Amino acid sequence: MENLLILPYNSELDVAAYQKLGVKIFTPESITPEDYANITIMLGWQLPLSENVLTADNSHLKWIQTVSAGIDYLPLAELKQRNILVSNMSGVHATPISETVLLYALYFARDFPAVLANGQKQRWAEHSEFTNIRTLSQSTWTIFGTGHIGAELARLLKAFHAKTIGVNRSGHAVSSFDKTYAQSDWQQAVAHTDVIVNIMPLTDQTTHFFNDQFFQSLPETYLFVNVGRGKSVDTNALIQAIQDHKVQHAALDVFEEEPLPNTSPLWKLPNVLVTPHYSSEMENLGSAWHAIFLPNLKSFVETGSVYENKVDLNNGY
Amino acid sequence: MENLLILPYNSELDVAAYQKLGVKIFTPESITPEDYANITIMLGWQLPLSENVLTADNSHLKWIQTVSAGIDYLPLAELKQRNILVSNMSGVHATPISETVLLYALYFARDFPAVLANGQKQRWAEHSEFTNIRTLSQSTWTIFGTGHIGAELARLLKAFHAKTIGVNRSGHAVSSFDKTYAQSDWQQAVAHTDVIVNIMPLTDQTTHFFNDQFFQSLPETYLFVNVGRGKSVDTNALIQAIQDHKVQHAALDVFEEEPLPNTSPLWKLPNVLVTPHYSSEMENLGSAWHAIFLPNLKSFVETGSVYENKVDLNNGY
Repeated sequence: MENLLILPYNSELDVAAYQKLGVKIFTPESITPEDYANITIMLGWQLPLSENVLTADNSHLKWIQTVSAGIDYLPLAELKQRNILVSNMSGVHATPISETVLLYALYFARDFPAVLANGQKQRWAEHSEFTNIRTLSQSTWTIFGTGHIGAELARLLKAFHAKTIGVNRSGHAVSSFDKTYAQSDWQQAVAHTDVIVNIMPLTDQTTHFFNDQFFQSLPETYLFVNVGRGKSVDTNALIQAIQDHKVQHAALDVFEEEPLPNTSPLWKLPNVLVTPHYSSEMENLGSAWHAIFLPNLKSFVETGSVYENKVDLNNGY
Repeated sequence: MENLLILPYNSELDVAAYQKLGVKIFTPESITPEDYANITIMLGWQLPLSENVLTADNSHLKWIQTVSAGIDYLPLAELKQRNILVSNMSGVHATPISETVLLYALYFARDFPAVLANGQKQRWAEHSEFTNIRTLSQSTWTIFGTGHIGAELARLLKAFHAKTIGVNRSGHAVSSFDKTYAQSDWQQAVAHTDVIVNIMPLTDQTTHFFNDQFFQSLPETYLFVNVGRGKSVDTNALIQAIQDHKVQHAALDVFEEEPLPNTSPLWKLPNVLVTPHYSSEMENLGSAWHAIFLPNLKSFVETGSVYENKVDLNNGY
């Protein structure tokens, strides 16, 4: 008998289907401290409750299914040591994140900062003012991270007739990328590009990957996008690169500190777009979670392992 | 010997190639009133100069090559009566206009009005505020006009996994449209749709096509886009539809009166995005013009007719 603690409330999760598998359901509202040790499965991660369950005396926790793709915020060392299974929601966010990145690029490419500023003043701009308009069809993109999200973004970019370069650990080829480089060859991957996108998982290798050395080696780059993890970027180095015009525009959804403090200079820098870690938001998100969780739960009840999206705790994704 | 008046200055037009065909070049700077009657070809249309050339005594004007796709602003009756050849730039604008329409849709779908307003206040929004986020992948589009631009937009939308419905005069099938309807069956075409796009040429049949009757028959529609011609829309009817929530959002690049007067209520209506007739702007526009004009000029010099994009003055496109 499995005891499941569901942390993100979402009416599209079909709880009755979980109960049919003989699973008993707990929620933050229904759980009592006496139940903590009996929880065997957690869907989602929410502090302090998740920590309390994990560290309960005589804990029976066996599996955490996150609702995120990244799992860097979990106490990985402890989970690994206790041999707790972790699976993620990789794949669910590919569509909304890809669409958000395209919005960022089109927003700058069609000079929306000026268009919207004129609109607020009820001012009609002349054609001669739009000398910096670009089309995605003539752009080259370098995408760090060629998993579900990166590949979906590349697929859409190919429909726009853009050129796509991917960077992953080994440099292995991935569908929809015109070329791929190994992470160690990143300098070649960004030598002739317009847009750089970070979608890498956060690991020791990717923490502050985008640092002073990275930005200073760039030729002038049109747009830098971060929809991966904030800590992959050294914020001060990025701000310097923007001020030096190494990076002409930046669109950032994730930050080293979240919420981004209202004192951060990023809010006010010209040509920087700040969004509140929302690129994976979509309609029917609960249904998408359910579509991954139900087969995983079924498999876990029957075999003790998940159907898909098992995380390798050795490499962190 | 042909005498060519080039009206839109653009350094990417390869004038030497025209001269090699034995064509003499005039520009607004070099032309004198004595030359008006000798001009045989005009590239572009600019008042009052074009009118002066057209109406010169003993005019030798034989061909007008526009730099626009629509030709509704030309004195069509006179051109037809005098049997003057007209060709347009249809095809050149498909990419920038399609990208602009996708920007409009993503701007609303990802709640950018709220995101940008928060940004100006250095305010980080909570996830719970983004209840109205949508993805294009779950949207249905009805596109009025299935020519170069409509078909390119539909092709991109299929890459996003959206559903595409086209409306044209006969209802003939067009690649990348899941379904097409004849213009007379427009009510079926908009009965279950999220986004309506106008890209029809302006003719007697399409003037005020989007009127009170049209908007009042709509179910609640997420977004109305006009990148065709302003006069296809009855502005007052559209404003009423927005106020009645028949149309939840509108993105408008063209208007009945341009420039849009700064007294127009459209500037200030919530959920209305105004852009200054710029959706066809792109980098290297002159090169794209040249790629259509040179073969047309060559053909005209050799045969007296153009290679492509000849306009039928009877139907106006």
